[in-house]
Amino acid sequence: MKKILTGVKPTGVSMHLGNLVGALLPLKKILSGNDTAIFIADLHALTSVKDGEKLREQSLEVAIEYLSIFGDESIIYFRQSDIRDITKLMWALANVTPYSLMLRAHSFKDAEAKNADINMGVFNYPILMAADIIGYDIDAVPVGRDQLQHLEMTRDIARSFNKTYGQEVFKEPEAITSDEFDVLPGIDGRKMSKSYDNFIGIFDDENLLKKRVMSIVTDSRGVDEKKDPDTCNIFALVQAFGTKEEEEILRGKYLQENSGFGYGHAKLYLLDILTRYTAPYRERREKFLQNPEYIEEKLRAWAEIMNARLEEKMRVVRELTGIR
Amino acid sequence: MKKILTGVKPTGVSMHLGNLVGALLPLKKILSGNDTAIFIADLHALTSVKDGEKLREQSLEVAIEYLSIFGDESIIYFRQSDIRDITKLMWALANVTPYSLMLRAHSFKDAEAKNADINMGVFNYPILMAADIIGYDIDAVPVGRDQLQHLEMTRDIARSFNKTYGQEVFKEPEAITSDEFDVLPGIDGRKMSKSYDNFIGIFDDENLLKKRVMSIVTDSRGVDEKKDPDTCNIFALVQAFGTKEEEEILRGKYLQENSGFGYGHAKLYLLDILTRYTAPYRERREKFLQNPEYIEEKLRAWAEIMNARLEEKMRVVRELTGIR
Repeated sequence: MKKILTGVKPTGVSMHLGNLVGALLPLKKILSGNDTAIFIADLHALTSVKDGEKLREQSLEVAIEYLSIFGDESIIYFRQSDIRDITKLMWALANVTPYSLMLRAHSFKDAEAKNADINMGVFNYPILMAADIIGYDIDAVPVGRDQLQHLEMTRDIARSFNKTYGQEVFKEPEAITSDEFDVLPGIDGRKMSKSYDNFIGIFDDENLLKKRVMSIVTDSRGVDEKKDPDTCNIFALVQAFGTKEEEEILRGKYLQENSGFGYGHAKLYLLDILTRYTAPYRERREKFLQNPEYIEEKLRAWAEIMNARLEEKMRVVRELTGIR
Repeated sequence: MKKILTGVKPTGVSMHLGNLVGALLPLKKILSGNDTAIFIADLHALTSVKDGEKLREQSLEVAIEYLSIFGDESIIYFRQSDIRDITKLMWALANVTPYSLMLRAHSFKDAEAKNADINMGVFNYPILMAADIIGYDIDAVPVGRDQLQHLEMTRDIARSFNKTYGQEVFKEPEAITSDEFDVLPGIDGRKMSKSYDNFIGIFDDENLLKKRVMSIVTDSRGVDEKKDPDTCNIFALVQAFGTKEEEEILRGKYLQENSGFGYGHAKLYLLDILTRYTAPYRERREKFLQNPEYIEEKLRAWAEIMNARLEEKMRVVRELTGIR
């Protein structure tokens, strides 16, 4: 059993089926059986979210979405800013982090390249990220390829502290990488993505779900023409979320001439499957939404577990650095 | 009555008579009658002090020295790292601080120019300094000319937060500048300074005091020759720390031929004066040194006052930013 940690920024983007298949379900498999914590990175979100009401709402929403997908057992969910000493640890780490290291960070270079209005939250982000990870003695962190460098920086910072103070205080976390093996097409056929606005949300209500499914782009073959399953977006989604049997039924209809079965029928067929598939997620979210106090209470209780873990580490940090 | 704050880095340099005359006594005058807090900037000291035992000792020492000079009434002394949310406030401020602003900081440019090993504590220093000041609604900060720019950055950061969140949360502190009006010569005649190692410590014991005074550099005039008060380092120190009468007595001896009064006599004369002058400071320090628990207790109690003040401000910051 490993200590695994993963963070999610509450930036107000609800999750879609592409995330589910490409990232969340593979992640669920990785986390299973381990000592796992998922944190809502509200301190990190401050780099871009400048509205308190929004950040609170989004933090709660992201907690609820993760709870709906991963369940509320055997995983610790906590809000980053509920951790009392996380920024103090960050400060201690900042003092063993060379400025030159930060200049190499992708997050900084990307922002610089885009000529964005870089604030010091963005620039310091890898140091806070390091505190988030090594403060709890995390063994491994699931990261996308784009985050590998930041995890390498976390390892650098841990090593630098240990070396400066002559003691193995911090563990160097390992990366758990997984390629997005299942790339799901969006309603326009391109990879499903927020940025293309071609996604179907995991928690979309019936109307929105229907609207999204009905606007899936197809070719112009008529009801009685033969259709090609391999190039059809509707078919790809049935394949991803239906049973093997449902997939075969649709394939049959597609390959049959004069079936009287057009893309409209196929969309309704998919809609049934998606409605059934997403129902448990939607229902869990609805249940949680009706009881935000319960979630808040749980989040606070979980945060205390993590506060206690960090406090253990901070005792050593205080002793070695001389701060309180 | 203004809220005034000043910080002192516990970097292990004991204070000397040049500091006393050039900075501490003028500062005492400025602080008098105001709501004043002096903090031991141990978080800032982490940029250079990498030894916990040393930092703790030096923090206590600097507290004791200040208490010995300014007294333990009507001033709040606190250790920066005893403030629970100071780094969290720093993080909130970092997110409204442009990276480009930091590049203009003297502290950074100096370090860069010296090709020093700049760590992120040095780079972020002006943001933590801003938190130190605006977190407690400070009206005014006594600063040397070299610190004026950092205070200007504090004002920039306060303004940026207020603008970002559309509310006048933070006050822009004023600078209280005072030139070092009395420049004291050291034992070699140059300005008394740690870096020249030509200083007489405020808290030097009798032996050290004697050793320092006896090594004051003079010209080579003999006991029976007339001497020039205006160019004599011994005379300058008598002028600074003796009574007007003592000064005139020495002047008389200097201007009289065949007095049989040489520089050795003058040094002993000065030694008496300095011993008397520094006695109360030394005694207070000795008293405090014998009771470090008392100091620690006081520091903690004072820190709670400042924690309460910061908490008041943090309530607003939490509400506006959405963090906890």
